[in-house]
Amino acid sequence: MTFTNASKIYRAVGAEAVLTESSDLRRYLTGFSTSFGYVISDKNGSVFYTDARYLESAKAALNGTEISVKEYGGNLTELLKDYKEIAVPVSRTLYPEYEKLKNLGLNVVDSSAAFDEAMALKDGCELDNIKKACAITDKAFNDLLPRIKEGASENEIAAELEYLMRRYGASGTSFDTIVAFGKNSSVPHHETGADKLKFGDIVLIDFGCKVNGYCSDCTRTFLFGDDKKHGAFKAAYDKVLTAHMLVKERVTDGISGKAADAIARDYLKEHNLDKQFTHSLGHGIGINVHEKPYLSPKSENVLKNGMVFSDEPGVYFEGDFGIRIEDTIALVDGKAVSLTDSDKKLKII
Amino acid sequence: MTFTNASKIYRAVGAEAVLTESSDLRRYLTGFSTSFGYVISDKNGSVFYTDARYLESAKAALNGTEISVKEYGGNLTELLKDYKEIAVPVSRTLYPEYEKLKNLGLNVVDSSAAFDEAMALKDGCELDNIKKACAITDKAFNDLLPRIKEGASENEIAAELEYLMRRYGASGTSFDTIVAFGKNSSVPHHETGADKLKFGDIVLIDFGCKVNGYCSDCTRTFLFGDDKKHGAFKAAYDKVLTAHMLVKERVTDGISGKAADAIARDYLKEHNLDKQFTHSLGHGIGINVHEKPYLSPKSENVLKNGMVFSDEPGVYFEGDFGIRIEDTIALVDGKAVSLTDSDKKLKII
Repeated sequence: MTFTNASKIYRAVGAEAVLTESSDLRRYLTGFSTSFGYVISDKNGSVFYTDARYLESAKAALNGTEISVKEYGGNLTELLKDYKEIAVPVSRTLYPEYEKLKNLGLNVVDSSAAFDEAMALKDGCELDNIKKACAITDKAFNDLLPRIKEGASENEIAAELEYLMRRYGASGTSFDTIVAFGKNSSVPHHETGADKLKFGDIVLIDFGCKVNGYCSDCTRTFLFGDDKKHGAFKAAYDKVLTAHMLVKERVTDGISGKAADAIARDYLKEHNLDKQFTHSLGHGIGINVHEKPYLSPKSENVLKNGMVFSDEPGVYFEGDFGIRIEDTIALVDGKAVSLTDSDKKLKII
Repeated sequence: MTFTNASKIYRAVGAEAVLTESSDLRRYLTGFSTSFGYVISDKNGSVFYTDARYLESAKAALNGTEISVKEYGGNLTELLKDYKEIAVPVSRTLYPEYEKLKNLGLNVVDSSAAFDEAMALKDGCELDNIKKACAITDKAFNDLLPRIKEGASENEIAAELEYLMRRYGASGTSFDTIVAFGKNSSVPHHETGADKLKFGDIVLIDFGCKVNGYCSDCTRTFLFGDDKKHGAFKAAYDKVLTAHMLVKERVTDGISGKAADAIARDYLKEHNLDKQFTHSLGHGIGINVHEKPYLSPKSENVLKNGMVFSDEPGVYFEGDFGIRIEDTIALVDGKAVSLTDSDKKLKII
């Protein structure tokens, strides 16, 4: 019998039973994606209740594992009737669902921390999925560059990039692709639109894809032709890239998310760019594109071997330009390994 | 000053103040998409609190409307301190957030029904967005057909279709595109995969896109070459298409979602296909791809002029084949108007 994350979470939570419904957590426990279902774990093992749409594929996927599969009969109360205590991820639980459990007389315990902690540490299989997503991200970006032509809209470039990732095996994007031309790059979360590419434009692209439910995340900033008006941009690019690389050199097993953020922030401060660095340095990446650990001035997380997170310093000059350089990195044997790794030297295409 | 949906919802809820955070409801109130923010409406009007990432674009988008824009200072408690009563959409509210409001001594009222009712009825601008999304859906499908070649994988076809929708102006898909070849079509929610297209395969494609935050939804089933083994499929296709068309002929302002579902279900029953019709007939379509009204055997919703919903009868023979024919339709002057409308006559490509 193959053990899954279900028993790991059950042991970590330490409650009589663990009830899991959120799609991301259900994906983590069962190892595959469904839009409906409950996993219930107790001392006797785990059962995945789902409906007719997923029953056959769930049975096939979980065959030989500790999780048995049953058709959901439509009555959650019935499934919980023998328990006195149930753990749910309170931070992800809707108020009516929580109330329903309380009204059944159950003692409700929080499983959120157990999931957050466990999901932050990737096993070999999870790391493989993220590596595949990152490799597709790199290949798609490299193949996109020669296709970028004057007059193309932000939306068209995003469409092209998403198409390439899909063709190379991604199941979809990990978030809405951001393509920002010119001064649009100064908005950290610019909404990709109809603006057309002009000679001399700065181009910022923030993108990622999913493979087997796991995400990648990458940002590149470059010039579409050099109109010789980009002195300030080039100087700032150099600093952001150095800040990005310093983080990779210095992060290690046991460093805090706060200290990791400070590596980039302190360097940018030395160069009078810290006020333009308006967001945090990074976030964990896995089934969710934003998860533990967080790398920010307020983070209380500690970075550990096996964690995967972004390193994405950025500076933004409102109405003028922005720069962000982001890789997905894994912490392995105390060192940062770049999983996305397309060239970061300033490109002029 | 332009009125927005914020005052409509405030009046419908009838509470001292209305607090809205869910991204779909926030989109409905403000008319544009953001990943963070609170709208607070009271007798003095509405304020949209968001962060630095969206502040400038929010001010531009809401200029001249009844909604003013302010930077969120990080303290929700402060913003609510003068109220005794607050309405939130309880069904979409996480337990910790609900508890926080209760702990502030606020009387918490439910705004869910007001949103569900209001959002089900589309105004002219909303209908325009859905029409645009549907037109793109049709055009992309028609342009996809000649590109479908033997040996292409489900994923590749999905990639091609999503690319076309994106190129034609969609901001993204309304849900994960389903492409199912052969017996995969018998799984209503098949996960698009690596299977390759063979001569004689049934092809089922369920897809949709977004324009200005509004969704389309469409399904077509056809044959990739006729291997003369599809007698049962062709007979069933004819019945599903007739069921689909009967719904369009007979739905009218004031019919119940249950009665609409029965139009298709009763017809399929006459032809011994009701046991294979394993899901409901349809669902409302708008900012969310599944919303009110629901057209199902248990629905208590009433269809009204101005509503937009799917008409999607389907039959599934496990391990053999499935058929689903779906259009997005609007109810206008008591009649169904098909917003997606690519040819539904059985295609053999």
